[in-house]
Amino acid sequence: MSTPYPLFSDHPAETIAAWGEVALLGHIKEWLGQATPDAPHGMGDDTAVLPESPGNLLTTDSLVFGRHFTTALPPELAAEKLLKRNLSDIAAMGGVPTVAVLAGFFPGNLRQDWLERFTRGLGQCALDWNTRIVGGDLAQVESGWSANLTLLGHAKRPLLRTGAQVGDWIFVTGELGGSIVSWHARFTPRLPEGQWLAEQAETVSMIDLTDGIAKDLPALMSKGQQALVNRRDLPLRLDVTEQAKASGKQPWQHALADGEDYELLFTWRGDAAALRERWPFTGTMVTCIGRIEAAPAPDAPLLLDPMDELPLLEAAGYEHFR
Amino acid sequence: MSTPYPLFSDHPAETIAAWGEVALLGHIKEWLGQATPDAPHGMGDDTAVLPESPGNLLTTDSLVFGRHFTTALPPELAAEKLLKRNLSDIAAMGGVPTVAVLAGFFPGNLRQDWLERFTRGLGQCALDWNTRIVGGDLAQVESGWSANLTLLGHAKRPLLRTGAQVGDWIFVTGELGGSIVSWHARFTPRLPEGQWLAEQAETVSMIDLTDGIAKDLPALMSKGQQALVNRRDLPLRLDVTEQAKASGKQPWQHALADGEDYELLFTWRGDAAALRERWPFTGTMVTCIGRIEAAPAPDAPLLLDPMDELPLLEAAGYEHFR
Repeated sequence: MSTPYPLFSDHPAETIAAWGEVALLGHIKEWLGQATPDAPHGMGDDTAVLPESPGNLLTTDSLVFGRHFTTALPPELAAEKLLKRNLSDIAAMGGVPTVAVLAGFFPGNLRQDWLERFTRGLGQCALDWNTRIVGGDLAQVESGWSANLTLLGHAKRPLLRTGAQVGDWIFVTGELGGSIVSWHARFTPRLPEGQWLAEQAETVSMIDLTDGIAKDLPALMSKGQQALVNRRDLPLRLDVTEQAKASGKQPWQHALADGEDYELLFTWRGDAAALRERWPFTGTMVTCIGRIEAAPAPDAPLLLDPMDELPLLEAAGYEHFR
Repeated sequence: MSTPYPLFSDHPAETIAAWGEVALLGHIKEWLGQATPDAPHGMGDDTAVLPESPGNLLTTDSLVFGRHFTTALPPELAAEKLLKRNLSDIAAMGGVPTVAVLAGFFPGNLRQDWLERFTRGLGQCALDWNTRIVGGDLAQVESGWSANLTLLGHAKRPLLRTGAQVGDWIFVTGELGGSIVSWHARFTPRLPEGQWLAEQAETVSMIDLTDGIAKDLPALMSKGQQALVNRRDLPLRLDVTEQAKASGKQPWQHALADGEDYELLFTWRGDAAALRERWPFTGTMVTCIGRIEAAPAPDAPLLLDPMDELPLLEAAGYEHFR
């Protein structure tokens, strides 16, 4: 496989080491463009002065070269992934993103052209989601490439992970599984969907699917609860079929355990059909995948398919974590 | 030189790789103790829900092993340095710190005992400065150790870097130079001093000294200004004398250029003697080191010693940056 977007160069003139810190920061401010306000509301003072109430939500997420992306990914998509991972966390609270700071851990041999495309991509993605990059920090590392983004947002009624009760329906947005094929960097954070759900009184609790339903659905449940999930109801991304052929697993196993779906998983206390009727997002599916029930015994399976009583976590090779 | 506080181990049982992510996060929450509130106001949901207005200041700073500290530094002091670098930025705005998130880039062979001491130290330092660690992110890296901390704070009247005019006096807190000997990790962020200064109408502009007066004083100045600085008035840290003996430089050159002083440099529009009289901090010096004047020519030296007209940046081997 070729390496179309190399991060590092052996030619010093192509790298950021050819610039001093002042020049590097100047380039970054230029590349961020309209996404970064002028000082003191953006880069340039000891801290950013936020122009208005920045909100009651605070989250942080990182991106590591070799772990979260490779040279196969265009630099713009690496930047988008970093920001959208954070946006997805704000979406999972039903919040609106506001301002962010970027921390880069860059080696001296980082290519100027890669960083330019990364930074321009970050700025564009921030503008697309009405978010501003108001500051940051650059630290030099010996090797490797990492970055961190911390994002503020606000929510009138933050939707927590807690609160699900017996009788709540379990819903998921979009489709699941096979994210690694393409979706993991091209996903759309479900911000409008999350904000709309926070306005519906029936929405009880919510999480964004980063590790997969197998790990993230139990995070919404409390002791004594069991989730009945019909595995045939799991909405499958098209990529899953191809992936399942290669892995020899069932598509539903991928949909349960793959991770990086960045979809919203939430519980709903009320008429499940009413949600589907009121759902205003024609471009985003919403699917009822099951219901929270009382566990029939303390050691009952956390996730059970009611059709054939298959314990889903165990069948997918998962252990209970709680 | 011995390595008293090794970060990494070849024995897997001593490392964080022996733990799963769930166990690791559990330990970190335990070690942070009272410094981290319960979910949703601390770790445990998609984002932290901030209990009240978190403020209008946002800053971020990082710490890289091998660059900002070595195995010679106790882990608690590495943690303190990470937090205090951020606290110093809030101090430089005259602000009060509120909440922070921590992002760690840790390899699998990181020692459990080192991380415990680091994390407990971070929690204690946060409590000491009335700051809470409300969330974070852990990313695995192949090698090296880095961390980032993003801190919120609030200031009624943020003291910016801009605004200094001809006639303003230049003041500095504490003592300068020789930070590398010990002060760089043991410094005290000047939070009460910064907050007090923000309440004084005469305080015009402020910065914290991270790169040294040679670079940070010009950041307070505008075009057409020249700073007259009497180099004999620079308050010297005791460590400077020892350092100057080894380097063959003059102590004032170290005080000008060493960096990592984490003292406040500010301009004052009013009676310089009145500041010294009103200054309420008996444990922290405040020293008038010079005055902003009009530059006599466009190419005049930025920093000039009025006693013998020595151009200080040039004499210290510095070039103009602006």
